[in-house]
Amino acid sequence: MNQKILYRVIYGDTDQMGVMYHANYFRLFEIGRNEYFRLRGVLYRDLEKKGIFLPVKEAWCDYISGARYDDVLEITCGIQKSTRSSLLFGYRILRGDELMALGTTRHAFVDKAGRVIRLSHEEYSAMTEEGLS
Amino acid sequence: MNQKILYRVIYGDTDQMGVMYHANYFRLFEIGRNEYFRLRGVLYRDLEKKGIFLPVKEAWCDYISGARYDDVLEITCGIQKSTRSSLLFGYRILRGDELMALGTTRHAFVDKAGRVIRLSHEEYSAMTEEGLS
Amino acid sequence: MNQKILYRVIYGDTDQMGVMYHANYFRLFEIGRNEYFRLRGVLYRDLEKKGIFLPVKEAWCDYISGARYDDVLEITCGIQKSTRSSLLFGYRILRGDELMALGTTRHAFVDKAGRVIRLSHEEYSAMTEEGLS
Amino acid sequence: MNQKILYRVIYGDTDQMGVMYHANYFRLFEIGRNEYFRLRGVLYRDLEKKGIFLPVKEAWCDYISGARYDDVLEITCGIQKSTRSSLLFGYRILRGDELMALGTTRHAFVDKAGRVIRLSHEEYSAMTEEGLS
Repeated sequence: MNQKILYRVIYGDTDQMGVMYHANYFRLFEIGRNEYFRLRGVLYRDLEKKGIFLPVKEAWCDYISGARYDDVLEITCGIQKSTRSSLLFGYRILRGDELMALGTTRHAFVDKAGRVIRLSHEEYSAMTEEGLS
Repeated sequence: MNQKILYRVIYGDTDQMGVMYHANYFRLFEIGRNEYFRLRGVLYRDLEKKGIFLPVKEAWCDYISGARYDDVLEITCGIQKSTRSSLLFGYRILRGDELMALGTTRHAFVDKAGRVIRLSHEEYSAMTEEGLS
Repeated sequence: MNQKILYRVIYGDTDQMGVMYHANYFRLFEIGRNEYFRLRGVLYRDLEKKGIFLPVKEAWCDYISGARYDDVLEITCGIQKSTRSSLLFGYRILRGDELMALGTTRHAFVDKAGRVIRLSHEEYSAMTEEGLS
Repeated sequence: MNQKILYRVIYGDTDQMGVMYHANYFRLFEIGRNEYFRLRGVLYRDLEKKGIFLPVKEAWCDYISGARYDDVLEITCGIQKSTRSSLLFGYRILRGDELMALGTTRHAFVDKAGRVIRLSHEEYSAMTEEGLS
């Protein structure tokens, strides 16, 4: 199951080509990811309080059509692959029916010192469980 | 004595009006401020290690002419006013001889918990001393 | 009459002090300004199509309390002063009842070449009219 | 032949994990790309004046070690693959001898309307020629 969220492009997102600056799509991906967790009742800030961090280890974006100022974009986010020590998120950015961009981010679960950790079975399930009653 | 440093505007700084997005001038001010300290042998990161933080309490910018992609800007930064618990920095952004923007930021010295602190006389002098031997 | 809009702080807004980087508050102000116009049926992108631009000439922010990751902020925006060639917007950023920041931005109406223009009475009223039926 | 350029991380680049926010590495890549062109006597802004644009069609970054505030990073940029209608740039971000990040961006040459164009042989050579006398 995927999470959808809307974002309206501001002037500060655009560049002089009149479209959203490419690096800013990764901010949209982050918004999608935050909501993905929230929908499952997992707040990323709570993970951090427990000493679990989820830094981005790899990021990729395929730009299909340039989003413009004041466009309302729909951010779709879901997990493509997961283990107890890593997550791969997939994203789609749409404007109405038009696909604007596709992307992925790969994350590792690490402790405060940056060492890779394995989640408990319970923590892992809470984040990745598809069955949301 | 003031510190001068150069910055070249990138695409990511611009907006669809073809000039640097107004919020990004405050990034330039930060660059100037960092160099101000460095010139005096005070590294802001060392201050943080000692538990001294210098958050921005107020920021102001007057935009005179819009900086464009690939412009080389000169950032001038100096202290306009200082006490043992606060600093007021002044900035000028120039493109050659042309004044592009003026600004100020006001800062408080705080500890990790955010409480205002007073620097020791020695710490204060190191940051604000004009005579750089 | 003022416009209220909500914004949730993302990781990309924060800095290593654990609060929203000061320059990013000006992005929030822009969001508020966009919604101010939208509420009055004036889309800023339509203004641009008519050759009317509204660059920021001056910006100011007073930081009262640092917004944190995942905070939901309320952006309030209203016009403090207006003429047919300039607008002064005022902003408040709140987290629940707590005032986080105050600010203003001053804008000029200019044409594509950057020359200051005066709005027609009709255009001016549409933007600043308080009576929204 | 590759182009090297230095960049000092500012506070505004970091996030609350205390490292450079992942999206900002793509700003560094842009800095490298600009300098790549400059070294060959090709200014990207001149290309735009001739009606040639080079939007990012795909971007990828592998994060190896997190860059910190005040770190001086070295940006290396070179062309990995090129045709008369596209370029693939490769980047490495180093801190001293330590590899911090690797990445690529793929670009298409397009006209103002966004249609893919083919460079003349002369234009193409100027951009990609390795022999810089």
